[in-house]
Amino acid sequence: MTTIRMAGVDDASLILAFIRELAEYERARDAVKLTEAELVRDGFPTAGAERYYECVIAEEEGEPPHSPTTGEPGPRREAAGMALFFPIYSTWRGRAMHLEDLFVRPRFRGLGIGKALLTKVAALAVERGCVLLYWHVLDWNEPAIEFYKTLGAEALEDWTRMRVGDDALRALASLDNVTV
Amino acid sequence: MTTIRMAGVDDASLILAFIRELAEYERARDAVKLTEAELVRDGFPTAGAERYYECVIAEEEGEPPHSPTTGEPGPRREAAGMALFFPIYSTWRGRAMHLEDLFVRPRFRGLGIGKALLTKVAALAVERGCVLLYWHVLDWNEPAIEFYKTLGAEALEDWTRMRVGDDALRALASLDNVTV
Repeated sequence: MTTIRMAGVDDASLILAFIRELAEYERARDAVKLTEAELVRDGFPTAGAERYYECVIAEEEGEPPHSPTTGEPGPRREAAGMALFFPIYSTWRGRAMHLEDLFVRPRFRGLGIGKALLTKVAALAVERGCVLLYWHVLDWNEPAIEFYKTLGAEALEDWTRMRVGDDALRALASLDNVTV
Repeated sequence: MTTIRMAGVDDASLILAFIRELAEYERARDAVKLTEAELVRDGFPTAGAERYYECVIAEEEGEPPHSPTTGEPGPRREAAGMALFFPIYSTWRGRAMHLEDLFVRPRFRGLGIGKALLTKVAALAVERGCVLLYWHVLDWNEPAIEFYKTLGAEALEDWTRMRVGDDALRALASLDNVTV
């Protein structure tokens, strides 16, 4: 049985493990520069600080280990996957949610856990008054795109995502043509 | 002279006017369903509520009206454009910023106001420890894409953005295969 729960600060190392496993699947293992300390700071901030993301964890409950003499132990739970998300905003429609990562460990695939995670994020979005849920998918990942379309998602083909980062971002930030 | 300032709650109707003018330019005038009340709630929330976006406003300062007898009035400022943005998160790199709308009214174009707005958002991003700044641009808007590339931005060609909304989102949210 699959259980979905909100991640807590104690899950930061598990979240980082999931992020690294997903990056490996996306053929970008070395791209993960994020640290556990940053995940703690940005997902579980101190009062007054900005929260950058939230996360839900899927656990799969196995059979309890057989132990006829000592009584029945609690069920064994294994971390199977996660969904990491944050609020965004559409100036056409208002509140929206962005799903940044959806990951299920290979040995837990085919059990409906990905769908359960996506459903949970959709439920949280609806609960918070969001009318749209977005995510990105790699063009070559056709199984994922087809899976998402069966859930009512559409591909937004006519937009290009732009990015400026690191040195170029700092250079842009320091242009001295602005009076503020 | 261009002045950039943070938007306040009194700017909500101006922000909505900008959003509508931008939608018209993007050939999607009827797509704006957002109301001024929602912009107030989501950008200038009461204590404890989540903030979904922030906004900076560009004002262009004209010559003061000629008034030799009554002394010099303050300079006349006209609202020229805006940038609307919010924090997002990269699980590879950490804190990031997303620029949702960048708009300059047609009669103020060619004065560097778009660049000044983008620079201000980049500066806020750097100030907050963000290493990346993202935005979307319509494929057919080649002048904008070329402008952004001169600022050090790159186009992310190999990702597709997916969206599920409204009825499909509610249906997804209510799938009863989840134990939470």
